[in-house]
Amino acid sequence: MIGRKTLNIGVVGYGFMGRTHSNAFLQAPRFFDLPYQPVLKAVCARNSERLKSFANTWGYESAETDWRKLVERADIDLIDIASPNDTHAEIAIAAARAGKMVMCEKPLGRNAAEAKAMTEAVESANVANMVWYNYRRVPAVVLLKHLIDDGRLGRIFHYRAKFLQDWTISQDLPQGGEGLWRLDVSVAGSGVTGDLLAHTIDTAMWLNGPIAEVSAMTETFVKQRKHNLTGQVEPVGIDDASAFLCRFQNGSLATFEATRYARGHKALYTLEINGEHASAMWDLHDLHRIQFFDHRDEGQLRGWRSIHVTDSDHPYMRRWWVPGLQIGYEHTFIHQAADFLEALSEGKQAAPTFRDGLATDLVTDAVLESAKTRQWEAPCT
Amino acid sequence: MIGRKTLNIGVVGYGFMGRTHSNAFLQAPRFFDLPYQPVLKAVCARNSERLKSFANTWGYESAETDWRKLVERADIDLIDIASPNDTHAEIAIAAARAGKMVMCEKPLGRNAAEAKAMTEAVESANVANMVWYNYRRVPAVVLLKHLIDDGRLGRIFHYRAKFLQDWTISQDLPQGGEGLWRLDVSVAGSGVTGDLLAHTIDTAMWLNGPIAEVSAMTETFVKQRKHNLTGQVEPVGIDDASAFLCRFQNGSLATFEATRYARGHKALYTLEINGEHASAMWDLHDLHRIQFFDHRDEGQLRGWRSIHVTDSDHPYMRRWWVPGLQIGYEHTFIHQAADFLEALSEGKQAAPTFRDGLATDLVTDAVLESAKTRQWEAPCT
Amino acid sequence: MIGRKTLNIGVVGYGFMGRTHSNAFLQAPRFFDLPYQPVLKAVCARNSERLKSFANTWGYESAETDWRKLVERADIDLIDIASPNDTHAEIAIAAARAGKMVMCEKPLGRNAAEAKAMTEAVESANVANMVWYNYRRVPAVVLLKHLIDDGRLGRIFHYRAKFLQDWTISQDLPQGGEGLWRLDVSVAGSGVTGDLLAHTIDTAMWLNGPIAEVSAMTETFVKQRKHNLTGQVEPVGIDDASAFLCRFQNGSLATFEATRYARGHKALYTLEINGEHASAMWDLHDLHRIQFFDHRDEGQLRGWRSIHVTDSDHPYMRRWWVPGLQIGYEHTFIHQAADFLEALSEGKQAAPTFRDGLATDLVTDAVLESAKTRQWEAPCT
Amino acid sequence: MIGRKTLNIGVVGYGFMGRTHSNAFLQAPRFFDLPYQPVLKAVCARNSERLKSFANTWGYESAETDWRKLVERADIDLIDIASPNDTHAEIAIAAARAGKMVMCEKPLGRNAAEAKAMTEAVESANVANMVWYNYRRVPAVVLLKHLIDDGRLGRIFHYRAKFLQDWTISQDLPQGGEGLWRLDVSVAGSGVTGDLLAHTIDTAMWLNGPIAEVSAMTETFVKQRKHNLTGQVEPVGIDDASAFLCRFQNGSLATFEATRYARGHKALYTLEINGEHASAMWDLHDLHRIQFFDHRDEGQLRGWRSIHVTDSDHPYMRRWWVPGLQIGYEHTFIHQAADFLEALSEGKQAAPTFRDGLATDLVTDAVLESAKTRQWEAPCT
Repeated sequence: MIGRKTLNIGVVGYGFMGRTHSNAFLQAPRFFDLPYQPVLKAVCARNSERLKSFANTWGYESAETDWRKLVERADIDLIDIASPNDTHAEIAIAAARAGKMVMCEKPLGRNAAEAKAMTEAVESANVANMVWYNYRRVPAVVLLKHLIDDGRLGRIFHYRAKFLQDWTISQDLPQGGEGLWRLDVSVAGSGVTGDLLAHTIDTAMWLNGPIAEVSAMTETFVKQRKHNLTGQVEPVGIDDASAFLCRFQNGSLATFEATRYARGHKALYTLEINGEHASAMWDLHDLHRIQFFDHRDEGQLRGWRSIHVTDSDHPYMRRWWVPGLQIGYEHTFIHQAADFLEALSEGKQAAPTFRDGLATDLVTDAVLESAKTRQWEAPCT
Repeated sequence: MIGRKTLNIGVVGYGFMGRTHSNAFLQAPRFFDLPYQPVLKAVCARNSERLKSFANTWGYESAETDWRKLVERADIDLIDIASPNDTHAEIAIAAARAGKMVMCEKPLGRNAAEAKAMTEAVESANVANMVWYNYRRVPAVVLLKHLIDDGRLGRIFHYRAKFLQDWTISQDLPQGGEGLWRLDVSVAGSGVTGDLLAHTIDTAMWLNGPIAEVSAMTETFVKQRKHNLTGQVEPVGIDDASAFLCRFQNGSLATFEATRYARGHKALYTLEINGEHASAMWDLHDLHRIQFFDHRDEGQLRGWRSIHVTDSDHPYMRRWWVPGLQIGYEHTFIHQAADFLEALSEGKQAAPTFRDGLATDLVTDAVLESAKTRQWEAPCT
Repeated sequence: MIGRKTLNIGVVGYGFMGRTHSNAFLQAPRFFDLPYQPVLKAVCARNSERLKSFANTWGYESAETDWRKLVERADIDLIDIASPNDTHAEIAIAAARAGKMVMCEKPLGRNAAEAKAMTEAVESANVANMVWYNYRRVPAVVLLKHLIDDGRLGRIFHYRAKFLQDWTISQDLPQGGEGLWRLDVSVAGSGVTGDLLAHTIDTAMWLNGPIAEVSAMTETFVKQRKHNLTGQVEPVGIDDASAFLCRFQNGSLATFEATRYARGHKALYTLEINGEHASAMWDLHDLHRIQFFDHRDEGQLRGWRSIHVTDSDHPYMRRWWVPGLQIGYEHTFIHQAADFLEALSEGKQAAPTFRDGLATDLVTDAVLESAKTRQWEAPCT
Repeated sequence: MIGRKTLNIGVVGYGFMGRTHSNAFLQAPRFFDLPYQPVLKAVCARNSERLKSFANTWGYESAETDWRKLVERADIDLIDIASPNDTHAEIAIAAARAGKMVMCEKPLGRNAAEAKAMTEAVESANVANMVWYNYRRVPAVVLLKHLIDDGRLGRIFHYRAKFLQDWTISQDLPQGGEGLWRLDVSVAGSGVTGDLLAHTIDTAMWLNGPIAEVSAMTETFVKQRKHNLTGQVEPVGIDDASAFLCRFQNGSLATFEATRYARGHKALYTLEINGEHASAMWDLHDLHRIQFFDHRDEGQLRGWRSIHVTDSDHPYMRRWWVPGLQIGYEHTFIHQAADFLEALSEGKQAAPTFRDGLATDLVTDAVLESAKTRQWEAPCT
């Protein structure tokens, strides 16, 4: 807008995440008073036909079919990676070396080794960087973070998180290729561990601090599937389900579970934290609410409060409509884009940074390792 | 038990309510420390075969097939009426005249005229009396009463109650006779107005004071049904559904509704009250909870509290198990029996009395009248 | 976008609704494949300072401070009215006479007389027209509409709707002026009847057909408030609460209630419909779900299904994200804008039209009349 | 009752479980048509004052202060053990040797060794025996069992159970003695593992078959407490929290957790099972409902059904009231007593038998062992 500095963005990827990111950059300045005006300068993907249509829909000024060219363009300030996991490391490292700011979809790498190289690249290039763990920007989750940081819960005893889906139960579902790369281990790196548990771990460490050790199990219920690119029936390399026990460094105990075989659940990310004085719960299927129990409430009237986090004094909500009216999933990306731009103008680095994303990858690596060794494993540091 | 005075009870009726009352008298002394030991002295009903079996199951000392004989027995202290509505007035008045205490199922009469005669009979005989509006004894509802009486809600703006069922939708359901007398207007007096709305009105006036005026509508969706006793298809005289607007004397506005045509609801008695400072809700299908919202809670943390009313400091609950463990429907009758016996030993009259039952019948009469006149009607006083 | 016809839009008003409409026109073509590209040609409001800022934020090409000038501009195809209720009639009629398409915020007029004049104006000018009753575009509500239209519920017995808020309980809240014109009867026309009940009536008649007659009550709990524009304490002319019984033409019975004095509820619009075979419920605070009960389910397994309306085969949802991920309040406006543009290209008129809006105003007039006459009233036709 | 054989019962213990068992034996014949009439012949406990009062309240014919005398009495058919865990083995073995039927509170032993000896005792004496894992008799849980056994869920992928409480968070709570023996490891055997996890394991193996292996962690948050009997501050030997991952023999994966440090939860026993075709959930705080999701429902209308298990065709419910009206916690014991007596008359052994109780103790032993060894452990067989 008038008087604001512009920030030229090059987005890689036009899938599900390409859309949420594009929308975030377009919507953020309409609802937040931002120091930078993000400009959708270029989008990059391989299929030039679909690329054109996508660029047209979202108003991109240009399109590229080779990310290397995008990274080299002088008119690009920030590279935003919304392409499959196996492309993250290469693009991010090249972008950092080219002096671009880098935003990257989660998980940061297919494994911690990739994530480490990426983190070192952005840190040695000293460029702004961020991982799109968008659930940190749900207003209800932010409220929960404030409650914890204010000490309302007291000493923490328990944490539990689940991310349950049911979309891969059919044996006829193929793996690999457009829309199904999450089932292809060479592209995704892992199954639900990197896709779903990664979200729950990022939120958990943000809310409850570092994880000390884990004991995990994983399972692949459907052992082979047709591969969409090769046309062959091939072994399935990803984990269909993954669960772990853990201890946090603060002494609290936790259980985590993710699966794509929980019939009836579409995207049931739930979390609960139990403290000495109070407890809280959140559920992605009803994302505007937290359930909060405060033992310091008057005895006979203690109960779980269902707080509809839509008031103007709730996190982010004064930017939107009026109390009682909800926002949706994509708004978490809008919030994240806005926070990134605000931090940038203040010379700060908005979280989660690549280093934060690496911390999560270290835990997911430990989870996968523990499932193999059948031992408790501590995340490397 | 040892050392307690006994109270000899004669129960009329062995149907649904005959069972809940018998159970109440047997269980009350096991869970409450009562001044009287209720004795199931006699049960009375017409079908002597079933009567014997019922008396045997419940441990009655004797059985009668004529309530007039029961009322005359010198060894009976209290007549408890659990038979269909058309028998209430005659039995209650005879019992009072015979100097017996009288307890009566709700509604008190088939109409206010009957209820008035019954009330005058027990009052002029100066005998203890009570109507079994059992929902006043749900722990959660009692907690709600305490909150209102303590002024926690402040000025009341709104009250709303519903009692929704779905068991008479089929046109093939006959009317009249055993188990189906509630559909026969000559026995029941009215349909859902006397059966279901009466409950909601009793609770409402207990919680929120007298009702000033009502505007009502009723409907009979199925116009004729086979009558089980005559074998003939006959016009249906009862109201299948009944709803009314009302103003309470305290200036609050209310809506009430009852029906047996709300597919999916078995016995959904719900109530909500909105005050200046706080609001509360209750639902019979989850009878141990109240939902409570207190505007004086800290801003960002205001929410509806789901209070599981099972702690030992909640009404009646220290008599039962441990926190979190629930009691059921029949316990409301046990509580009412216990309260009656306790009040008796203190020379007090436990509520709801026949006079309270009359007050409700005056409102249901006004509701039925308003539905006919299509005018606002005030309950007679 | 490339290849699409453009549709030039002039929006009047930059308040809450000015934002939702502007957002709708910008977002619709990104998520729907539309025949027209809406262009934010001009925005109109009186305060030129705020107007500039609003135009800048939303990317309007120009701004006007006099709606008459806007209506006369040759480069405007459609006038969208998002200003307070007292401006609707004059602007809409002028726009229609100038041959513009007209979209108007609800309620259509401050009363049925205004709505009638507006309806006649657009109909005699033969211009496309629509009223922004946005709740018809909630995916869950559309699903419910499909269920009813498919005959899944069978004969309808009951309908009930509530719209409960609590934001005007404080006596210190002033009336009139920016953000508070909804409390000023001369601007708003009525209180909750036109603001909240209008929404519930529009949805109800869409789902369940015309309303035959109503019996209503209204109340103004706070009798006088300071007026923000005059600075004087003045009588309050609006209704704070409004409830009515009604009969639909299809023989079903209903209760409706709206209030701004229901402590604990921010925007609790709930509706329920009970049919012979099935029932359904919806709640704005959890807008993505319907509760659905089907009596034809197997006996022991009958229950209320909580359907999370986020699958790709649910109404509108394939345009958005993936199953389980929700959209928000503003998306209902996006859907409505998209539907309007699609209908336009097919030479059809999308609902609700001004005539539909008039039908609702006839019912709200009957409600207010009944509250005065204390009689049952039928909406004029 | 008349015509029934009597069964003379001697109950050991008059605490929480002494009450639920006494009530079960008294109530069962009133609601079930039983072949045996249970007679409360004798109750046994050490404190003779309280014993007398208890015997009086519950109508016991006699009282004993030494369980050895009780076991030897010729007029006792069945010994029911409702005393603390450290007494179970000795009494049960003596009773079996004396040829009495034996019922025993859960857990069967303080550990599997005790349970094994008890099981061998009743089996070699060939006497009827049962463990009071009462949650198998919740109507909703039984319905769930039927669904699984009917194959409605298909191949099982996941099971998860939690039993969360919050009553021992205070450091000032002493351990040991009346009402607090559950905190004393020498009496209880273990903490939440034997007290709460045992319930979840019994139900789980009943529903989902044997457990193959576990990986567990336990924690004692409060390390020392005053002991009520010694008056000394002593180390706490029990586990305050216990969680485990497991694999069932059928290949499904599970997580289990129990704690007394989950602020806000009183007795939150929840379970969920996910199958290929359908999933189901249950929650003790709302014990009459199951949530059931069937993927074979029509696409757009799939949802979690909230089934209120109170219809007359639901397990046990035709014995109680009418649809919609709930029963409580104690009814699970009544059902278990009734089932025991029915099985007895048919010459069958009602479950869970001592051998079933032993199976659970073998799992809890494995859990405690795994928490120590930090290895996966298989229950001994």
